[in-house]
Amino acid sequence: MAHDYIEDLSKHVGQEVELQGWLYNKRSSGKIRFLLLRDGTGVLQGVLVKGNISDDMFSSFDELTQESSLSVKGKVRKDDRAPGGFELELTGFKVIQIAKEYPITPKEHGVEFLADRRHLWLRSARQHAIMRVRHTIIKAIRDFFDGRGFTLIDSPILTPNAVEGTTTLFETEYFDLGKAYLTQSGQLYAEAGAMAFGKVYCFGPTFRAEKSKTRRHLSEFWMVEPEVAFNDLNDNIELAEEFLEHIVQTVLKERADELKILERHTAFLQNVKKPLPRVTYDEAVEILKKKGVAFEWGNDFGGTDETVISEQFDRPVVVHRYPAKIKAFYMKRDPKNPELALAVDVLAPEGYGEIIGGSQREDDLHVLLKRIAEHKLPQSAFEWYLDLRRYGTVPHSGFGLGVERTVGWICGLDHVRETIPFPRMIYRLAP
Amino acid sequence: MAHDYIEDLSKHVGQEVELQGWLYNKRSSGKIRFLLLRDGTGVLQGVLVKGNISDDMFSSFDELTQESSLSVKGKVRKDDRAPGGFELELTGFKVIQIAKEYPITPKEHGVEFLADRRHLWLRSARQHAIMRVRHTIIKAIRDFFDGRGFTLIDSPILTPNAVEGTTTLFETEYFDLGKAYLTQSGQLYAEAGAMAFGKVYCFGPTFRAEKSKTRRHLSEFWMVEPEVAFNDLNDNIELAEEFLEHIVQTVLKERADELKILERHTAFLQNVKKPLPRVTYDEAVEILKKKGVAFEWGNDFGGTDETVISEQFDRPVVVHRYPAKIKAFYMKRDPKNPELALAVDVLAPEGYGEIIGGSQREDDLHVLLKRIAEHKLPQSAFEWYLDLRRYGTVPHSGFGLGVERTVGWICGLDHVRETIPFPRMIYRLAP
Repeated sequence: MAHDYIEDLSKHVGQEVELQGWLYNKRSSGKIRFLLLRDGTGVLQGVLVKGNISDDMFSSFDELTQESSLSVKGKVRKDDRAPGGFELELTGFKVIQIAKEYPITPKEHGVEFLADRRHLWLRSARQHAIMRVRHTIIKAIRDFFDGRGFTLIDSPILTPNAVEGTTTLFETEYFDLGKAYLTQSGQLYAEAGAMAFGKVYCFGPTFRAEKSKTRRHLSEFWMVEPEVAFNDLNDNIELAEEFLEHIVQTVLKERADELKILERHTAFLQNVKKPLPRVTYDEAVEILKKKGVAFEWGNDFGGTDETVISEQFDRPVVVHRYPAKIKAFYMKRDPKNPELALAVDVLAPEGYGEIIGGSQREDDLHVLLKRIAEHKLPQSAFEWYLDLRRYGTVPHSGFGLGVERTVGWICGLDHVRETIPFPRMIYRLAP
Repeated sequence: MAHDYIEDLSKHVGQEVELQGWLYNKRSSGKIRFLLLRDGTGVLQGVLVKGNISDDMFSSFDELTQESSLSVKGKVRKDDRAPGGFELELTGFKVIQIAKEYPITPKEHGVEFLADRRHLWLRSARQHAIMRVRHTIIKAIRDFFDGRGFTLIDSPILTPNAVEGTTTLFETEYFDLGKAYLTQSGQLYAEAGAMAFGKVYCFGPTFRAEKSKTRRHLSEFWMVEPEVAFNDLNDNIELAEEFLEHIVQTVLKERADELKILERHTAFLQNVKKPLPRVTYDEAVEILKKKGVAFEWGNDFGGTDETVISEQFDRPVVVHRYPAKIKAFYMKRDPKNPELALAVDVLAPEGYGEIIGGSQREDDLHVLLKRIAEHKLPQSAFEWYLDLRRYGTVPHSGFGLGVERTVGWICGLDHVRETIPFPRMIYRLAP
């Protein structure tokens, strides 16, 4: 583990180091040769001067191709003009492997060509920037909850019931117990966790076998779902605001270079500070009507509706109190208007749509039993969940945030396929 | 979010607070009533003195049952004899719900009875301790890699190939693309990540449809897999040692109370510091022979063999250089003895078996092609993986650590079923 890395070069100015990595690019200028080495932590310019190294070595520079692996030795020099701010005066290099005909060249490639070579595409500067932002978002999510006394309660991936039909579920045989289904949400399990630990979150992959081919859909995506006992809808919204602020401000602070590489305009991101603007569903419908959108009260917002609503704001907007009939059975009704559910969505600006969806949960056993019957759901599948209302029920709330949509929004990407290392979509299961 | 929590009471000594939670236990003594309130962050003793509160309220104490939800008001008093070190002089309480006949009483229950009520069992002190240790282990894992410049590269759960047969794989239909299989390891994807980012890790659920019913097997379990470009076997072992030390020492420091609740003897855990003892496979076989175990060179160690080997050490033991024929195709052979693979396992003491398995990977394209043919694997399924050896191949190594076995070992549990919130085993898919 005694390797030197490009990201640590500031500690070695004036010293001789040995670095290992891959050729990113090269050029010649008279008696000088330049190479760009990438080692995964950064990109470094190395300089070869004819006469400073052996003629054999100098001429073998010509054999180096893109993505050839090599180790280089040289002295670290601070140089503000060089990429990364440092330069290496090479005293020698050793080829590990010459890469022949690396398929991803600096020219433009079609996106399907690149997606087929995702294992190589990940080496590009753009994908590096996205994956680093993704890493920082995931770390910011965990740090947020870990730092506030939440307990991580991993929900199961394999679940026993397909209560709302199997059309959007992936199913598998489970030994002698019949079918199992890949989870779409850990929420019900997180609710059990909240009754045990007060404040919990689950964070793992979730699945939708949805036959949609849009730029917002993956069949496998990561979701974080906090759930808090004794939180009402307002507490839930405040938690969501604080959470979004933490994620976005952390990325702005720690990944400014990556956002620059992605040419991301950050004005709207800078604005993500609590409190966020809040509108009721009714007010959101008014916005649509004023903008001339044909929309009937009681329907759910489609992608275009969300875009029109969110375009009225220069930061994410909180929409709350939706018609109960378009929301899930477990959402608590508004005591002031039982046609409404105490639901909340947060819509990202710039057309990125819903990034958070949540609610206060129905905590009354008898009301919940009624809802299950109204939704024609099999009560037996929910007996364990109903136990949470039988034994010390309390008001509680939570929400879910999809990682990939958040990455797409913060990075300013057109399509969700670049937000995860190996995307899974209706037409893509490989590599 | 203005709730007060038991874990924060040290900030409120002498002040009046309002707390919300569940009744854990209660008792009476003359004109005094004691209740134990749990709120998920801790357990607090509340004291009611007849005369200090209304007679109605005092007598309604008798109605409180285990797991009833309530809010309490009172003054915080430091009291070293009380559980948690604080006590609340109650000035009032309000019942939210009386829990009727909570099924898990302080008496002994069978483990299947408890497992069927896992959503309630999680409320017990023992399960709290285990889940908090689990949380700390997962955080320690992520902090270790995040703090050392590793990039998180989430590997996919849905994978396209069943190259080694489908007997231990869960499979599902994947739109029009045929079958998909739930991942057993993210390693091959992590290798692609390491060629792009140098140092990476993946960390997610993995699956085995293995028909085993042992105390060490789950069908769904979490695994972390680091992979590092330019690391050889020795670097890999050093990384594993440093990693284990970090995890165990973090838990000892931050979860001492929980380990006490679990009555865990920590002497062997204290010893987990690098360097760990290292033996070759050959030396491990010698140990077995000396102990009178019938074992033939060339076989893999079974559970009992691992226990006998690890019993010779008072800390985890590193076993390296296994016969190649019992190891996976992608492991590099030992240049000094091509019958051996540059593989490494770490065996936990006290019979907890293998917690880490890893290797240096074969980095030569032609050798790897030969191995794929020898193992009768379909080369087409590995073309993307072979690309990593075509375009700038470098020596690299990695390993995997199973979270649940690590939790079981550190907590000193008999069975892996208590190491995860909702365990999945051959006979259990619910709740």
